[in-house]
Amino acid sequence: MQQPSNNPLVGIIMGSDSDLPVMQEAAKILEEFGIPHEVTIVSAHRTPDRMYEYAKEAKDKGLKVMIAGAGGSAHLPGMTASLTSLPVIGVPIKTHNMDGLDSLLSITQMPSGIPVATVAINGSKNAGLLAARIIGISDSAVQKKVADFQKCLESEVLEKDEKL
Amino acid sequence: MQQPSNNPLVGIIMGSDSDLPVMQEAAKILEEFGIPHEVTIVSAHRTPDRMYEYAKEAKDKGLKVMIAGAGGSAHLPGMTASLTSLPVIGVPIKTHNMDGLDSLLSITQMPSGIPVATVAINGSKNAGLLAARIIGISDSAVQKKVADFQKCLESEVLEKDEKL
Amino acid sequence: MQQPSNNPLVGIIMGSDSDLPVMQEAAKILEEFGIPHEVTIVSAHRTPDRMYEYAKEAKDKGLKVMIAGAGGSAHLPGMTASLTSLPVIGVPIKTHNMDGLDSLLSITQMPSGIPVATVAINGSKNAGLLAARIIGISDSAVQKKVADFQKCLESEVLEKDEKL
Amino acid sequence: MQQPSNNPLVGIIMGSDSDLPVMQEAAKILEEFGIPHEVTIVSAHRTPDRMYEYAKEAKDKGLKVMIAGAGGSAHLPGMTASLTSLPVIGVPIKTHNMDGLDSLLSITQMPSGIPVATVAINGSKNAGLLAARIIGISDSAVQKKVADFQKCLESEVLEKDEKL
Amino acid sequence: MQQPSNNPLVGIIMGSDSDLPVMQEAAKILEEFGIPHEVTIVSAHRTPDRMYEYAKEAKDKGLKVMIAGAGGSAHLPGMTASLTSLPVIGVPIKTHNMDGLDSLLSITQMPSGIPVATVAINGSKNAGLLAARIIGISDSAVQKKVADFQKCLESEVLEKDEKL
Amino acid sequence: MQQPSNNPLVGIIMGSDSDLPVMQEAAKILEEFGIPHEVTIVSAHRTPDRMYEYAKEAKDKGLKVMIAGAGGSAHLPGMTASLTSLPVIGVPIKTHNMDGLDSLLSITQMPSGIPVATVAINGSKNAGLLAARIIGISDSAVQKKVADFQKCLESEVLEKDEKL
Amino acid sequence: MQQPSNNPLVGIIMGSDSDLPVMQEAAKILEEFGIPHEVTIVSAHRTPDRMYEYAKEAKDKGLKVMIAGAGGSAHLPGMTASLTSLPVIGVPIKTHNMDGLDSLLSITQMPSGIPVATVAINGSKNAGLLAARIIGISDSAVQKKVADFQKCLESEVLEKDEKL
Amino acid sequence: MQQPSNNPLVGIIMGSDSDLPVMQEAAKILEEFGIPHEVTIVSAHRTPDRMYEYAKEAKDKGLKVMIAGAGGSAHLPGMTASLTSLPVIGVPIKTHNMDGLDSLLSITQMPSGIPVATVAINGSKNAGLLAARIIGISDSAVQKKVADFQKCLESEVLEKDEKL
Repeated sequence: MQQPSNNPLVGIIMGSDSDLPVMQEAAKILEEFGIPHEVTIVSAHRTPDRMYEYAKEAKDKGLKVMIAGAGGSAHLPGMTASLTSLPVIGVPIKTHNMDGLDSLLSITQMPSGIPVATVAINGSKNAGLLAARIIGISDSAVQKKVADFQKCLESEVLEKDEKL
Repeated sequence: MQQPSNNPLVGIIMGSDSDLPVMQEAAKILEEFGIPHEVTIVSAHRTPDRMYEYAKEAKDKGLKVMIAGAGGSAHLPGMTASLTSLPVIGVPIKTHNMDGLDSLLSITQMPSGIPVATVAINGSKNAGLLAARIIGISDSAVQKKVADFQKCLESEVLEKDEKL
Repeated sequence: MQQPSNNPLVGIIMGSDSDLPVMQEAAKILEEFGIPHEVTIVSAHRTPDRMYEYAKEAKDKGLKVMIAGAGGSAHLPGMTASLTSLPVIGVPIKTHNMDGLDSLLSITQMPSGIPVATVAINGSKNAGLLAARIIGISDSAVQKKVADFQKCLESEVLEKDEKL
Repeated sequence: MQQPSNNPLVGIIMGSDSDLPVMQEAAKILEEFGIPHEVTIVSAHRTPDRMYEYAKEAKDKGLKVMIAGAGGSAHLPGMTASLTSLPVIGVPIKTHNMDGLDSLLSITQMPSGIPVATVAINGSKNAGLLAARIIGISDSAVQKKVADFQKCLESEVLEKDEKL
Repeated sequence: MQQPSNNPLVGIIMGSDSDLPVMQEAAKILEEFGIPHEVTIVSAHRTPDRMYEYAKEAKDKGLKVMIAGAGGSAHLPGMTASLTSLPVIGVPIKTHNMDGLDSLLSITQMPSGIPVATVAINGSKNAGLLAARIIGISDSAVQKKVADFQKCLESEVLEKDEKL
Repeated sequence: MQQPSNNPLVGIIMGSDSDLPVMQEAAKILEEFGIPHEVTIVSAHRTPDRMYEYAKEAKDKGLKVMIAGAGGSAHLPGMTASLTSLPVIGVPIKTHNMDGLDSLLSITQMPSGIPVATVAINGSKNAGLLAARIIGISDSAVQKKVADFQKCLESEVLEKDEKL
Repeated sequence: MQQPSNNPLVGIIMGSDSDLPVMQEAAKILEEFGIPHEVTIVSAHRTPDRMYEYAKEAKDKGLKVMIAGAGGSAHLPGMTASLTSLPVIGVPIKTHNMDGLDSLLSITQMPSGIPVATVAINGSKNAGLLAARIIGISDSAVQKKVADFQKCLESEVLEKDEKL
Repeated sequence: MQQPSNNPLVGIIMGSDSDLPVMQEAAKILEEFGIPHEVTIVSAHRTPDRMYEYAKEAKDKGLKVMIAGAGGSAHLPGMTASLTSLPVIGVPIKTHNMDGLDSLLSITQMPSGIPVATVAINGSKNAGLLAARIIGISDSAVQKKVADFQKCLESEVLEKDEKL
């Protein structure tokens, strides 16, 4: 993986800027791990042409993984996966009326042939971590950071337990 | 409405030929009402380009209403609605694992701006009838057929009740 | 469509004035599109006679589409559809206890023969847009407004993305 | 209660003859208790006028209780309750796609003002028993039969337990 | 029905005084209709002996209908129904964690043999109205009040509609 | 624990003999572990008096643990727990209409004060194993059998894996 | 049971200190009953090694019962149960997005062979009471406290009823 | 990626050989793509030690991706993810009682910090395809196969449509 460091490896997309507070958790963790990424608004329903273009060009412009957040009739992750051969991670955004069950089922229940890697409702931090794990399989520095992150989680629990 | 009678007014699309047994109920009722229509396989996930093309050309080739059936992560009706300004009717197909609740939510819970007219799970006959009602608002012959159909439903109930 | 411009083409009905904040989104979008419409309170359970009368007269007084909002045991859209041959759009109103799942299922799961075009929970804006799409199939000015509206949605996303 | 013995006290209605196998359990138990009743097909959606007429005349023709079975968008019990001041018992019929959850919510979640006495999914035998309990409050012979029936249930359990 | 006017005809019971704000809607409507009633706390789980005694004596002390409100594992209505031959109305109380779906299913899904007349989640006003309808079948004054109440509901809707 | 070896330590109860095929899995595992037990039909709704008596006498006749299986409005485990101070294990029986979700919620969602130890839907084998674990805390022979059983589970998996 | 009084009999574990407000209800009731216990943070996902060690040593250090609280993909109770032969009580913690249904199903639906005694969502007080009932089968003083506690619940209801 | 071609890159694990018919779809697609893989039975609940060992050694023995299938209280994917820094794909296995909703929620709703890439219920073919996409980001031959596979899906739809 010799792409220049500025070249984003992970593309984070979402249907609306209202999803940004949730989705930036993915960006933050990638930032923390030093993985170049880009954040863009791409709506399956409001900008279908843009979605097509973005997804179809993703691989050639050097992206390795895509993270797509969407709520309700959440079509962005699945459509993106159908337009690229890159791994696509779907983040079901919590909704006002169905608490995100609609988003979860819309993203998870993909037909045979087109996979989406779904994480928990509003689980965009885990989406970032999953992207890191994926990139880590061919980048041992990133893989080490994932392992270190897990050790940190462990230490934090132990510290909190001591305080109890 | 002066299109030649052969020109389909309703486009019935579905993601897979396995959805045909359900979806042809829509075709049958349109047949019965003498409304020209076409039936095509268009998969959001397996033929995204074809879906784009089909949906974008629908209006210009004379279609008035589209009926899209899909199951699971059912993206076809919503994506079609985002690519056309015609009314799109969505039919949630019953699924093996979630009984169609996934299909129902994926189709119904569209974001503000892009409507899909959802009918019941496997309710493709009603999709055909809804298309007829829509066409009927500017075609009084069709509207009369809808009204006659409703009277038939009524008569059937009365007959069955007599037999009781 | 030669009715005088004041003659409402869309009838928006709801069971209670408490549904008005949700349902007026439908009215607003029709206003924006210049489609004449009327807003009335008609309760399936509290004013069944009025509902019968309203639904049965709808076609003759020039309505083309009906939009009915209801929550819980939401019978208004389905009963209206059984009393007219016009297309009826159902808006499931979010409820305190079941988050609108009761409304959604009561409206969507209509028996074969009587279709209701269901939109998302509280999706009354989309109900208005769907009415516009339906009217648009025989009124090219309205159809153009729908297409323009979709272009606006697209532009808004692009602008927001620029700001990111 | 001095009506002639032939005069039905309980009206059992259902939307379709396909509901008869479920609904006749209510008739059977009323038969067993010697409570005069009638069984009729009345569909909210296919025979709305008949439903109006039937429900509005129910009280004057001597009915004391109504039992209405319906599935899916189950509007019959609630609409009947809105058209009469008699107690109405609703039986949610199991559906193919939602297992009767749709029927249950459509019948139970009535708005304030119009009550429906809902029993279990496919619970038409209990609907008959509930009608008997209701009639029993002013007919001590029926009330005694209800009490005897409960004793029978008890004996049956004890016998089965002995066999164990 | 010749019991002295002070003698309660409806017994309203609930598992906890925290259910009182919901359950007193039933009492209020009975008050309004002039139907004597009593309100008592009886918990299936915390006072099982009291529940047995109360339910078993209900009929002999002159009660005609029982209304039982309960939440979560809501056993009070069903257990009461198994201990009396009077009609029992169950009110599923909304819960913090399951929004009352647990209460609804615990109360509705009674086994064959022991009916409970379930109303909507938190629907205690309708429970009171259902009790009135039941009492009304042998008390024409009460039946008239129910009919008048329904006319009032109608007038209120018409008034609100005028203001629109 | 000095009761004579014939004296049952675990009482397995269920509402109907139709639950026996599911519930005898609990008996089988107790048999296998050599834990004396008894199996009885006790219905909360059809034999409420018997349930009272059985639950109230359970402790004095030497029972240590009770296992109660029930479906739908599953009141048996919770009512039993309210009538004894012994630990009560609840087995939600799968139902025809709600797949056991009704049973699960009716048994699990007990109010604060009266605990029921719920296992999986139809999980009566685990109910027997849980009873064994509970008895094992004061009977080291039983505890050893539980540990051996877990080792067996492990061996079985390893063997199956070898065959792969 | 001759362990020194300081030796904890019940181990209360949870995945995060954010679960402490819910889980300390279990500790409080054990405190009230004078049952020695310990409270520790052990995360299945963040400290898997610690979970293994804790669960495997539990029996030998004198614990009799374990209470494990967890939310979402709630693996702590089930994994603990697979690593010990002690009875394990699972407390499903309410979650932001699924209201605890995810926690409930993750904990209850254990495979055959490894039982978890599940209580209600956030039902940690009942978890403590269940632990007391379990310990009570071989410690009559504890068993008496459980019985007294139940009498208290009864008295409280009676007092509240008097105030009504 | 210089591991010898025999060295498995993907480890497919499942809790029971009864999951094999579902899980071998993942193996088949990897076979088709020429990606070396191994299939093993590892149960979180019955062989916790084996699960630990397997997950902890996975990276060092050359695995790049893990696929874990599990049903009900499906702990295998999440626990595996907590014990390795490799990407873990979870396959929710359909269950008899909850149709796989329990499996889906147990696998998807992971806490922040430990991601699992969830696919559809019984979606093991997609799990295999997702593994291929992940491996493809550093192996252009595999990535090309993924792209070719998607073209095949497209062709199949077009052919089926021609036959229509």
